[in-house]
Amino acid sequence: MPQCGDEFGASGERAMKLGDLPTPCLVLDRRILLRNLAMMARAVARHGVALRPHMKTAKSIEVARLAASASGSALGGMGITVSTLGEAEYFAAHGVGNLLYAVGITPQKLDEVARLKTAGGEVIVVTDDPVVASHIANHPGSLRAMIEIDCGEGRGGLLPDDPMAVEIGRRLGRSLVGVMTHAGHSYAGRSAREMRDIAEIERQRVVEAAERLRGAGLNVPIVSMGSSPTALYAASLAGITEVRAGVYMFGDLFQAGIGTHRLDDIAVTVLASVIGRRPAQRRLLIDAGGLALSKDRSTADGPRDYGFGLMLDVDGKRSFGESLVGRAYQEHGVVDCDPSLAFPNLVIGAKVRIAPNHVCMTAAAHDRYYVVDEGDEVVAVWGRVNGW
Amino acid sequence: MPQCGDEFGASGERAMKLGDLPTPCLVLDRRILLRNLAMMARAVARHGVALRPHMKTAKSIEVARLAASASGSALGGMGITVSTLGEAEYFAAHGVGNLLYAVGITPQKLDEVARLKTAGGEVIVVTDDPVVASHIANHPGSLRAMIEIDCGEGRGGLLPDDPMAVEIGRRLGRSLVGVMTHAGHSYAGRSAREMRDIAEIERQRVVEAAERLRGAGLNVPIVSMGSSPTALYAASLAGITEVRAGVYMFGDLFQAGIGTHRLDDIAVTVLASVIGRRPAQRRLLIDAGGLALSKDRSTADGPRDYGFGLMLDVDGKRSFGESLVGRAYQEHGVVDCDPSLAFPNLVIGAKVRIAPNHVCMTAAAHDRYYVVDEGDEVVAVWGRVNGW
Repeated sequence: MPQCGDEFGASGERAMKLGDLPTPCLVLDRRILLRNLAMMARAVARHGVALRPHMKTAKSIEVARLAASASGSALGGMGITVSTLGEAEYFAAHGVGNLLYAVGITPQKLDEVARLKTAGGEVIVVTDDPVVASHIANHPGSLRAMIEIDCGEGRGGLLPDDPMAVEIGRRLGRSLVGVMTHAGHSYAGRSAREMRDIAEIERQRVVEAAERLRGAGLNVPIVSMGSSPTALYAASLAGITEVRAGVYMFGDLFQAGIGTHRLDDIAVTVLASVIGRRPAQRRLLIDAGGLALSKDRSTADGPRDYGFGLMLDVDGKRSFGESLVGRAYQEHGVVDCDPSLAFPNLVIGAKVRIAPNHVCMTAAAHDRYYVVDEGDEVVAVWGRVNGW
Repeated sequence: MPQCGDEFGASGERAMKLGDLPTPCLVLDRRILLRNLAMMARAVARHGVALRPHMKTAKSIEVARLAASASGSALGGMGITVSTLGEAEYFAAHGVGNLLYAVGITPQKLDEVARLKTAGGEVIVVTDDPVVASHIANHPGSLRAMIEIDCGEGRGGLLPDDPMAVEIGRRLGRSLVGVMTHAGHSYAGRSAREMRDIAEIERQRVVEAAERLRGAGLNVPIVSMGSSPTALYAASLAGITEVRAGVYMFGDLFQAGIGTHRLDDIAVTVLASVIGRRPAQRRLLIDAGGLALSKDRSTADGPRDYGFGLMLDVDGKRSFGESLVGRAYQEHGVVDCDPSLAFPNLVIGAKVRIAPNHVCMTAAAHDRYYVVDEGDEVVAVWGRVNGW
């Protein structure tokens, strides 16, 4: 079995094909990934701001290296975003020194943040709470923090004109390094125009918050916003110093549905084996179910409902039309094959690939990527950091 | 940090409380587990058939040991069911010699099955395909197989009167050891009577299949059926030799909804920290989102929709009424607090526990259980085998 970190040369001596792999497993197409990384790097660079990629989707140091390279930086010089302290620890151990943990911090987690700083990975934390701000400021680890601003999603953060932001800023004192916001509601956008409008509101709100804090005499060097749709579609990033985005690296059926990329730009798929055939019902059974694909149903409310995923052939091509995973049991997926095409000529054991609804959720069930450069030859195995 | 395999004595020297743990993480209440194991052991024993517990939910050798003990057997003498070859390898390595891999096998997986047999873990495989049956019979590993029967779920398996079953039985030859079925549609049952009726159909169909095979001169020693609801509610198991069930060990909100146990019988919860407060919207933000809880929404179609989970206090008590996780982002959960109660007096960093919608999916995101015997003292840490 290939192990994480393995690279397979072109010599052919250790040639491995997707057809040789145990299923289910995760396939990452590096050429598509590189294309997606370049697209976002260009989109952000035209505004002259930094990209702080969110690694919550990829959770892989190899992908972080490619993201740095696409932005023209070295890994050590790039700031990244993480969603768990487990990610922070992993990326810090691999040489990333500038991390933003973009989930509201609790006082209990500050010791771990300080420990990582001592080990070379400075983790900027996020808060919208005055009591927590005092904990951060009083912690002996000289910690740094951003104030979280709500730009309309209604999840975490303070409204930009909430006087509590200034109170928190004062309590943070020298720990204050910036403000951040996330327009997660941009995923409800259904057109480039809607996403551009949401991006503009996101920008205005977080810049307003920064200016109010500055007006109160506070130092706010970092003004951070972002989601993949708003990072791509923003018309202006005036006043913003950095943009965060993550899912754009891989793409998925949901993102294709809202138009942030094409179906052919989905870099991560689940390799599965056919384990049952019911031609009379036009159904195939595969060994990728709710665990391998996730139970995410985010395309249910989108322009096209892809069920639990879209079936591709082993080369990642759309050879089966609209054949969708309609039901997902723990380890069984039921594929409803496209009624406008002949029933797929796939025997038990044949391999297919499933494009995911929501790649962040799907990838999290897997501990490694089998990397291809288009086609079906495995060129490397890259690990992921899951859990917390 | 406590490690898997740790046990904490009553001496108090290494006393650890749930409040000390990093969040999110998985909590297993051993007393509830033992109660659930005893209940199922009694329910099956009254029919005089064997219980072959499905370990796809717990994925833990410590839980398998307790399940064996509840049925009055030693671990080595108990047959278990698994849903992945990864589970088979794990349990075999821990001394379980009799395993049923209850997902349709592919020819490509047979070498691994043979390897496990050589290592002491005999894995019975399952098929409904004649070509695969020939592969099994011709494999040099002297493999054993059951024929999968469809008792109404329409997922995998042959109808009991399908002549293909006899053809597959003949091809399997000496490899044939039985027939098996799974009434997964019993989860659509909404009363004890409906589940009893589905159990009876499940029994009739698989027994009919066994008798048809026997009528064709084939040897069918094992007749296997089961799901937690039908195992609990079956009025008769005449002709059945073993029953499979798994989710009953832990229980969840879905199972409570269909009446297979009470809300107080849910043994596994997710420990989370409060990371945000919005009293005006009566909302709390917690650090358990879609990854820690899963995106499973199986209660959506049930008698009561629990969103992504029900919030309990750190002791596992229902102190917050119907406070539900209404939205689940990757690492954020938004709790809509019960409007009939005062807003919870919980500061940032306070611990709560979330009862899961579908525990098989929720537990799979976590690599260990923090075990309590009611209350909040951690008495052990048990590992899980995730992945494939």
